[in-house]
Amino acid sequence: MRGKFISLEGGEGSGKSTAMANIQNWLESQHIDYVMTREPGGTPLAEDIRNLVLSPREEIVDDMAELLMMFAARSQHISQKIEPALAQGTWVISDRFIDSTYVYQGIARGGDIAILDHLTQWVVGNCQTDATLLLDVPVEIGQKRVQQRKHSDRLDKESHLFHEKVRQGFLDRAHQNPQRIKLIDASQSLESVKQQIQQQLKALQLSWSKSEK
Amino acid sequence: MRGKFISLEGGEGSGKSTAMANIQNWLESQHIDYVMTREPGGTPLAEDIRNLVLSPREEIVDDMAELLMMFAARSQHISQKIEPALAQGTWVISDRFIDSTYVYQGIARGGDIAILDHLTQWVVGNCQTDATLLLDVPVEIGQKRVQQRKHSDRLDKESHLFHEKVRQGFLDRAHQNPQRIKLIDASQSLESVKQQIQQQLKALQLSWSKSEK
Repeated sequence: MRGKFISLEGGEGSGKSTAMANIQNWLESQHIDYVMTREPGGTPLAEDIRNLVLSPREEIVDDMAELLMMFAARSQHISQKIEPALAQGTWVISDRFIDSTYVYQGIARGGDIAILDHLTQWVVGNCQTDATLLLDVPVEIGQKRVQQRKHSDRLDKESHLFHEKVRQGFLDRAHQNPQRIKLIDASQSLESVKQQIQQQLKALQLSWSKSEK
Repeated sequence: MRGKFISLEGGEGSGKSTAMANIQNWLESQHIDYVMTREPGGTPLAEDIRNLVLSPREEIVDDMAELLMMFAARSQHISQKIEPALAQGTWVISDRFIDSTYVYQGIARGGDIAILDHLTQWVVGNCQTDATLLLDVPVEIGQKRVQQRKHSDRLDKESHLFHEKVRQGFLDRAHQNPQRIKLIDASQSLESVKQQIQQQLKALQLSWSKSEK
């Protein structure tokens, strides 16, 4: 039986790392085989591409070049890691997936959505997520959390307006894909966020158990 | 006046390095401003991508990932190096360009030509070469030359059949684009190849001088 494919989405400071840890703990408690992964990245080559995309550099990075690198990494990730795992019944949990591309490269940076649609069709095909958990948090709260971290990369340095576009972009996509994208109110307490996430995981587990029979 | 954009194409061992040196000497002798470059590569980021694509690695590299990396590098190369140079009247000479992608990723590896057409439209747009010099040599001769070199990379290790497909692929493209792609018989003597190349360069220079008036 094919594993479930879950992605976690949200702007900077939405608490994705904590949520990833929560999901992992829950999967352990349920004795479900799983792989935790991330985008861009997830395989050695895809991680190398991630480093190229996220490292600050003198050279201006062309939007199209960035987009194609993202999809190159994704193609490698899907063919070498995600699909093989799902095929053997392992659940795959990815920190970011296709929705981030639409929101960051498409909506926030004004990329051509028709191009994203073509690339998605070629690269993702039927390997869409069974559920995407969207951690939503007001930009002010997210940014405050980010400032408390030491590490920051090129994408963290964008303007407030950019982060507002990102948040709205995710909310719009959730609106357009209500079956797949599950909204999590990440401005709540850690315990509340954890409960919201577990509720979604349990629903997925239920549909998974049923599909077994 | 916009510079001329020339690419050099050919299979392994067709003598591209020597031809690049010949072209450079000729441009110097004519006091034409020029940039010598190559694909994949040509900018720091594009060269980093080149290293990812050409380095041998344990991981199987997905054909689509390779293709998208090639076009990511190309997008960066065009926007940051080729277009700015051409716009200020500098000639650009590239060791490989779009024809290599069609031949290696498309014809020889059986990639989807419709996908290549889309990517070419998005990334290359109107930045097609004014002339492409195709160094054609029988596979046996090319392979003999390659074996005499010390360095070899992943793409050098392909089979004889692959190299035959590459040669035929280039010849077919030359047939389909007779105005742009100039066939050079690279099995001839070094002096003969040099003369054939100079003849093409002189024709380009003539059309360039005329467009000035």
